[in-house]
Amino acid sequence: MFSSRVPAPSSKSDRTRALLREIALRSFREDGYDATTIRRIAQEAGVSVGTTHYHFASKNQLVQELYLDVQQRHRAALSPVLDETDDLIERLRAVYRTGLEELTPYHPHASEFVSAALAPKSDINPLSAESTAARDITEELFERAVAGAKHSLPDDIARGLPSALFLGHLLLALYWVYDSSPGQAKTRRLLDRGLGLLKLALPLARLPLVRKPITELIDMIGEVRA
Amino acid sequence: MFSSRVPAPSSKSDRTRALLREIALRSFREDGYDATTIRRIAQEAGVSVGTTHYHFASKNQLVQELYLDVQQRHRAALSPVLDETDDLIERLRAVYRTGLEELTPYHPHASEFVSAALAPKSDINPLSAESTAARDITEELFERAVAGAKHSLPDDIARGLPSALFLGHLLLALYWVYDSSPGQAKTRRLLDRGLGLLKLALPLARLPLVRKPITELIDMIGEVRA
Repeated sequence: MFSSRVPAPSSKSDRTRALLREIALRSFREDGYDATTIRRIAQEAGVSVGTTHYHFASKNQLVQELYLDVQQRHRAALSPVLDETDDLIERLRAVYRTGLEELTPYHPHASEFVSAALAPKSDINPLSAESTAARDITEELFERAVAGAKHSLPDDIARGLPSALFLGHLLLALYWVYDSSPGQAKTRRLLDRGLGLLKLALPLARLPLVRKPITELIDMIGEVRA
Repeated sequence: MFSSRVPAPSSKSDRTRALLREIALRSFREDGYDATTIRRIAQEAGVSVGTTHYHFASKNQLVQELYLDVQQRHRAALSPVLDETDDLIERLRAVYRTGLEELTPYHPHASEFVSAALAPKSDINPLSAESTAARDITEELFERAVAGAKHSLPDDIARGLPSALFLGHLLLALYWVYDSSPGQAKTRRLLDRGLGLLKLALPLARLPLVRKPITELIDMIGEVRA
């Protein structure tokens, strides 16, 4: 699935585009958002700034390529793990963990990206219209994780859950960005506690008294996303 | 309480400091974080950049003055409202609403502050050591709101609640920053739904089955803050 999305470049123009993209992603990883510029990418690729702009209108369009790359890797890494279990909590653990693993190479400079993504009218905000393609991939992973699990959740809760879990993913990623513990161990611990909490709380969704607040929480999260 | 924190300036140096602070806060409100510079503040006050730096080492130190100003106003606006009710949910509504009201003048440029606050090693991150004084005021408001309320929450939940509510306040403020609905009506609606949810969920904390996930959630939020 991954390889079908990034076909082997056939024309010279395709090869130039692929090279620029590769240089940009490495520069984002190694030097960060702030130090990466169209000018530097062009220079390293040995092409003009004009040629670079022909392929990518802005630095932020290259950040969208980064988002897509991370999410396509996320999907590729997750698929075999999802095949191993139909336990809901273990499937969710797999989605969150593989997601964090694919982000790991970007950790040293991650707060530069957060800062840029939350700037006024930013087109790399993960909830912006421009980020739809990458966001869709991740949301679909949560949908698959829930749909393929054995559980006895009421239908409305199962339907609303992926969107709530995706918001959890964004908040977990925000926590991870500022987590300076070795190997971001604190984030992993928080994730495990969060999943432990879900394991305790979700079965209660069948109790009439508890069902209403859980449904309301999920609806409310849907409103946050709207 | 507010006036005791900002005494009437007595010496010439105190008056200069108060003037610089006032100009900076107005500039942050009207022109935003990005356009406000030490140089511009000095110019408008009719003093040298050196004098300005003598009083405030950096622009971000003036942002800390802004944080303190907003939180002191928050406390002053809240006190009379808290005296009116001992209902927990209504007291919390008062804390969140007055907090948003005091932020309102800063809404037009608020995302500039978020972007700067989340930049690498930022000293105006609301969770940074440098922001302790302003953060302490807000946390104390949530402690007062819970302590003065009639409720039958288990002790451990009542103790952990203010810290969880404070994190809710930060997330609500983040939502508010990007809320472009007229008068930020969507944020108010979200707040009302969140409080409705608490009203449904908190009484369940006495059920043994529900108590454990709620305690775990509150402990986990404590870990996020640590």
